This record gives sequence, C-alpha cells and structure tokens, in this order.
Amino acid sequence: MSLSGPSLDHQTAGRTASPPSGVDVPALVDGLLSGSRSALARAITVLESTRADHRTAARLLSAALPLPERPAVRVGLSGVPGAGKSTLVETLGTRLTAAGHRVGVLAVDPSSARTGGSVLGDKTRMARLAADPHAYIRPSPTAGTLGGVARATAQTIPVLEAAGYDVVLVETVGVGQSETHVAAMVDTFVLLALARSGDQLQGIKKGVLELADVVAVNKADGDRAAEARSAARELAGALRLTARGTDTVWVPKVVTCSGLSGGGVDELWSTVLAHRDALGPKRLAEQRAGQRWALAQALVRDELEDRFRRSPRVRAMAGDVRQQVLSGGLTAAAAADALLDAFDQG
Amino acid sequence: MSLSGPSLDHQTAGRTASPPSGVDVPALVDGLLSGSRSALARAITVLESTRADHRTAARLLSAALPLPERPAVRVGLSGVPGAGKSTLVETLGTRLTAAGHRVGVLAVDPSSARTGGSVLGDKTRMARLAADPHAYIRPSPTAGTLGGVARATAQTIPVLEAAGYDVVLVETVGVGQSETHVAAMVDTFVLLALARSGDQLQGIKKGVLELADVVAVNKADGDRAAEARSAARELAGALRLTARGTDTVWVPKVVTCSGLSGGGVDELWSTVLAHRDALGPKRLAEQRAGQRWALAQALVRDELEDRFRRSPRVRAMAGDVRQQVLSGGLTAAAAADALLDAFDQG
Repeated sequence: MSLSGPSLDHQTAGRTASPPSGVDVPALVDGLLSGSRSALARAITVLESTRADHRTAARLLSAALPLPERPAVRVGLSGVPGAGKSTLVETLGTRLTAAGHRVGVLAVDPSSARTGGSVLGDKTRMARLAADPHAYIRPSPTAGTLGGVARATAQTIPVLEAAGYDVVLVETVGVGQSETHVAAMVDTFVLLALARSGDQLQGIKKGVLELADVVAVNKADGDRAAEARSAARELAGALRLTARGTDTVWVPKVVTCSGLSGGGVDELWSTVLAHRDALGPKRLAEQRAGQRWALAQALVRDELEDRFRRSPRVRAMAGDVRQQVLSGGLTAAAAADALLDAFDQG
Repeated sequence: MSLSGPSLDHQTAGRTASPPSGVDVPALVDGLLSGSRSALARAITVLESTRADHRTAARLLSAALPLPERPAVRVGLSGVPGAGKSTLVETLGTRLTAAGHRVGVLAVDPSSARTGGSVLGDKTRMARLAADPHAYIRPSPTAGTLGGVARATAQTIPVLEAAGYDVVLVETVGVGQSETHVAAMVDTFVLLALARSGDQLQGIKKGVLELADVVAVNKADGDRAAEARSAARELAGALRLTARGTDTVWVPKVVTCSGLSGGGVDELWSTVLAHRDALGPKRLAEQRAGQRWALAQALVRDELEDRFRRSPRVRAMAGDVRQQVLSGGLTAAAAADALLDAFDQG
C-alpha cells in the first residue's frame, strides 16, 4: 500500500476544509504514519476527548487510517491489584521489543478519573519499557465513565496498528465490568491469577474466568512455583470440564509464569500465539467484526444508563427508592416504574 | 395473623373506590388467601398484564398481600433443552407435596410469546403434578420481552407465598439472560447439567455456572450413573478451586440425580435446604432485599434498551449500521453515536 497517495489526498482535503475542532486530521495521520510519537500522542488525545468537535475529528481520524499490512496481535491482560500486571507487562514487552516487535501498551481503568490514574500513570513501574524506543505506553484515559474509557481505548488500538505497532497489550485492573470491555477489543484475553495454599487460586473474580483464553498463574517463582503448578493443573482440568461442545477450536489453557524472574513468560507468549493460530485468519477477522458490533451495542447501553443515572429527578429520588425496596416497602416493579416515571419527567 | 380482619378492610376499601381497571383487588386478595385457585390465576394474570391500569392494580395487589408466616423456599432451576427439567420438577414436586408441602411452579421463558409457550405450556409434561391439589403450575407469562416476563414472575412469587405455597420452583430454559433474572429472584439457584463421556459436562452455558448454588448432574441413571458421578466429582473440585475467600458461607455443591428414576432427588432437595441453612435467616433476608433492588435496576435497564430497540429511527438504520460495522466501514464508537443520534431524533 502506498502511503504517499492517500496522505496527500488527506492533506488536500484537510486544508481546503479546516475542521472546526482545530485538529488537522491529515497532518496527524501523516505524522503517526511517519513514526512521530508526538503525533501519536496527539491523535490518542483526540480519541480520548469527550468534546463534540473532537468526536467528529476522531471519526475522521479513524476513517482516514490505512489498514495495517498485518493485523497486530491484540492481547488483553486483566488481574486484580497485586497480581503483578505491571511487572509482567514490563518483562513481556521488553522481550517482545528485543525480538523485533513494536509494542503498544494501553490501559482501561475507569477509576483513573477519580484516583488520578494509578494504572500505568506511574511509568516508573515500567521504567525499562517506558524508555524503550520500540514501545509506546499510554496511561488509561480519564474519560470518567467505563463506557468513555472503553470507547477511547478501543479506538486507539487501530491507531497504534496503523503507526506500526504489531503487538498491542491492553491491561485492566478489573474494576466493574472493565474485563468484559477489554475482552471485547482484543484477540486473546489473558487472566492473571495467583496461587494460594491448598491448590486454590485467588484473583479470579466471578464471571471473569469465562472470558479467559489463557489463564496465567503469576508469581510462580521461588517457594511458590510448585504451588502455582499444582493450582494450574487443577484449573486446567476444570476448564476442560466446562469447555463447550466439539465445535470449540480452543479450550482455555493455563500456564504458570513469573513477571519478576521471567520464567514462563516465553511460554505465556507462545500460548497466546497458539490461541491465535487456533482461531486462524478467517475466524479472527470474524471475531473482530463481531467485537466491533458488540462494543457498539455496549457503548449504546452505557450511554443510556449514564443518561438515566445523570437525570436530576432520578438522582433526587434514587436513594429513597432504594431504601424502600431494601426495607420491603416497595416491590422491584413499582420501584422501576417510579424511577422511569421520574426519568421521563426530565 | 388474623385473615378476616385485613380482608374485611380490603373489601370495604375496594367497594368504596372501585378501581378503573375493573379489577377488584381486595376480592382477589381474599380469594387467594382462602385458597381459591381461580382467584390465584386471576391475580397472576393481572400481574402479567402490560396494560397501564393493570399495572396500577398489580401495585395495589402487591401492597395488599399479607406477609407469609414463614418465607417460602424459593428455588430456581435452569437447564438447556433436553436437560430434563420437566421430569425433575414433576418428580421433585410430587415428593414435596407428598411430604406436606404446597408447591408453586413458575417459568421464565421469554421465547414463549413467540413460540406459544413451550415451557410448561404443555402441562401433560407434568401430568401428575398438574393434577395434584397441593401444586399450582403456571406457564411462563407471554409478555414478550425478557424484562416483562421477569417482572411478572418476580411479582408472582409473593402471591404464591401469600396463598400458602411454601415452596416455589422457578424454572427457565436459559434463553439469553433469563438465568440471571431467575437467580435474582430465588434463594437457591440450581443448574441442571448432563454428563457426557470423558468426565465432561454439557448444558453449562458460559457465565451460568457462576450463578449456581447447586449443580445437579441429571439423568444419572443406568449406564450413565458412573459417568455422572465422575463428572460431578471433577466439577466439585473445580468449584472449590475458584471459590472466593474465607468469608464465603457456601461453596457451590454438585449432586447427581435422575428425574426419571427419582434417584438422588431427595439429596438434591436436602442440598437446597443446606444452602438455605448456611445462609441463615438474616443473610437470607438481606439477599432478598438486595435481589429486589437488583431486579428493579435490571427492569429499568431492560426498559431503556427496549425503548431504544423499539425506536422507529433506530430500527430503520440498525441493520445497515450493523453491516457497516461488521464490514469495517464504521468504527464501534461512530456506530454508537449514529444510533444514539437516531434515537434522540425520536
């Protein structure tokens, strides 16, 4: 694909009709295609913005991106706080860049707007990777709502792909439904867990295990290595047990690894690639198409619920209605009707 | 609790202000408290109605119901088609009425409006229980949407309780999210699964296992008994593995049973009661309160999504937008914006 042709067209179009947002979309696209990190950063900032004119610019930007020659390997990584996400991403990312890959790291953390951004906000937690010229680390957008954060991150992935990043890692700490959103924007979803005594696992929230293509029992080092292997074996059996019918091309795999020592990290990556191979190009393309539509629907739902929650009348009565329902004074149906009536009154 | 006092009050109130719906709520309440099956049927019909005046009558009815002396044992039962739900409910229900219980059987099947009602619609599938004077079987409401069906069923449970049914079984075939709604209206949620060769289980949909308090591997009879026991053992191990921290009062149990032979059905019931005991009265009451509020929120969400889906402008463009998203011509965010814009235009 020739890059100069389309980019010239973009520039012409951009300059004749300078957009109201003040964002020069063609220049941005040119910049990020030529490898400018500042253009990449600006492009992502536009995608993260909730301003209406930036939304328009974001749409133009998304439409103007050339498709990459090969789709990047998109991997989601979730784990509870303390599961060792940052250390693992640092180790994995550094190995990938050493092997010639260009690695983009994104985060989905809906709490970052409140906390000022803990996930990746402190790049010192990934000091080596942050200084690596073949890696690009972007902290979680601070758009406030989960829908806003997921929307921005999902749109950022193709930008990284277009900019030549052939591996995109999306991590999430797992607040609320963020794992569901991340699983819906990656090719392979990796869940980090930790072993604890008695062949048990911790860090597996209800409903998240079902999203995982790969479970990595992390911190499998020193005294804990044997424990981790034992827990991994048990879990692998459990996953085989509940795997669906014979049409399943992939039964979730369990590996052990240590972000700290690096042990098992290569195996984790080869398992990710094995999942990708099992899908094959056709199914991968179908999965991405289905994910885009599912994400569109999720964004609609999030917006509808946000509007409801933001409604002044709903906010004014919600606490009281909730108390009445909890105390048994109001049925669920009556409560729903009352809240919907309030919403409809503006 | 004296039944005559409140019922007279109700009658007086009802006769002085005859409701616009033509539903004599106090008479209905009197009727169902005195054991009239036709009053019970009429009351449930009002609760299932989507007419606005019936909604009002339903609210009055719900508010007028006396609390039962003891809360009924509310059990949800889900399983894919072919899991043997009807046979198991027939066997379990018949044993419970023989033991002196009064058993109400409800169903949540959002597809019944389309199919004319397969679940329980054919009472011949539970011929013995349907003829049992101590049992009351009610087919799934045909309110169309899952929200409508779940709303009606959740409101029906307290009516059955007030009418003296001390066991309420709510079954669902598991279409869409119906298991989630059923799990949110019962005390104990039982998932039916089937063994298949190789220690594997079938009939466990993604995301449903996490809802289960009890998993019953059904059709554990004849040649399949050993297979079922083996699969149950494996699954029990898996559930222990992913059980959460030490504050958990209950780790999901796995039993084997046969609705056909009756084997294991008593153990299934005692496991249900053991779950109830483990919760204890205080936690059970808290769970019910939390469920009412969760159901209220789910009903709001369902209604918001229904309104969106019913919007003529959304309907007119949704197919086209979906195709564009699937083909890659439109990003998820742009699609969500386009659909929301259409919705906002009426």
